[in-house]
Amino acid sequence: MTTGVRRRMGVEERRQQLIGVALELFSNRSPDDVSIDEIAAAAGISRPLVYHYFPGKLSLYEAALRRAADELADRFREPHEGPLGARLLRVMGRFFAFVDDHGPGFSALMRGGPAVGSSRTNAMIDEVRQAAYEQIVSHLGIAAPPARLELVVRSWVSLAESTALIWLDGRRIPRAELELQLVHDFAALAAVSAAYDAEMAGILVRILADEPSDGPFGELVGRLAGLVPGPPAGG
Amino acid sequence: MTTGVRRRMGVEERRQQLIGVALELFSNRSPDDVSIDEIAAAAGISRPLVYHYFPGKLSLYEAALRRAADELADRFREPHEGPLGARLLRVMGRFFAFVDDHGPGFSALMRGGPAVGSSRTNAMIDEVRQAAYEQIVSHLGIAAPPARLELVVRSWVSLAESTALIWLDGRRIPRAELELQLVHDFAALAAVSAAYDAEMAGILVRILADEPSDGPFGELVGRLAGLVPGPPAGG
Repeated sequence: MTTGVRRRMGVEERRQQLIGVALELFSNRSPDDVSIDEIAAAAGISRPLVYHYFPGKLSLYEAALRRAADELADRFREPHEGPLGARLLRVMGRFFAFVDDHGPGFSALMRGGPAVGSSRTNAMIDEVRQAAYEQIVSHLGIAAPPARLELVVRSWVSLAESTALIWLDGRRIPRAELELQLVHDFAALAAVSAAYDAEMAGILVRILADEPSDGPFGELVGRLAGLVPGPPAGG
Repeated sequence: MTTGVRRRMGVEERRQQLIGVALELFSNRSPDDVSIDEIAAAAGISRPLVYHYFPGKLSLYEAALRRAADELADRFREPHEGPLGARLLRVMGRFFAFVDDHGPGFSALMRGGPAVGSSRTNAMIDEVRQAAYEQIVSHLGIAAPPARLELVVRSWVSLAESTALIWLDGRRIPRAELELQLVHDFAALAAVSAAYDAEMAGILVRILADEPSDGPFGELVGRLAGLVPGPPAGG
């Protein structure tokens, strides 16, 4: 949508345009630093007209966040086809692409600003986490996840968030490396849980049975075994 | 400190008493649900006298949070003695004891309430994370952590937070199991990073060289090797 469009837009079309313009501005600089004047200028309309569609910056921010949240939740959707490791890797690729596109806004949001104090904002973040959780569980093929599996999946979703936030602070590690690392982290967290709980071990063995032996999970264990000085096989 | 103390307290003593009373109330119920009247009643003083020491609930909440933050940061301090796995396990024991004692307040705080909007609150949380990060790094004996090690330690601190929050929601897994699991998670996250980066592999090998072969790290790898159907040794 270019600015300076001459024809008159309908109400909903104008709202959607403003949301898109605002989301781009909120994504590329800390939302606290973005003014309504800038949004109006970028949309090619007057400041009062922005207020005609949105009563204030918070409501426009929330609408932009709603769109971002829906888009982010979408990126966790993945066809139920092929090995699990490859599916997770595709999901992580789309997740990091989102983080890359919306860096400053993602950081500001997850670090508690600028709409802090809005329970609606927190609820939207929780919705995305829940959608991600449900997607991953559905790929594991577990109808009623036991508490330990729920913990592994939810804490892994949180790990993906914090890894992305730490990455954004300087981008000192290649993105693709972290996408693959998070797939391995999932296997590692599940394996730790499985190492001490029979039910989790059963679930993990079933998951790994469908993985190719040269897939990320099998490869990881081979590499780990090579790192440890102790006797992993004979001990 | 019992209520109804007859003698007059000094200003600082009274402030400290109010902070203690408030922290206990804020810890055991969501801070949003705790009123100044309750705090006054629990401290055995009048509501106006509470306002004499603290201008409002937010300032008392922030003072209580300051005390809690200092206490939590303290719990990450650990003597530099003995195997690393055992040190981390003691730290996790103290961390979960804190979470156990301050459950509802800890949840409310980390989920963005009730002092959301206060940048001082967020800064205090970040201070605790930073203190935990620096403690762990000091135990690893690394003067200038490379980016990948920093990521492992910071993301593990975040994993400990999210594991504690998920645990608080129903407490369906024994606390001691999660304390041990987080020690293993640390090893697992470090190992994943080491599996693909030579510098991290060097650091991990050095750490593991000081671990007893029957310690949590060695034990974990042995158990993992037994779980995976592929050929970890003969590959």
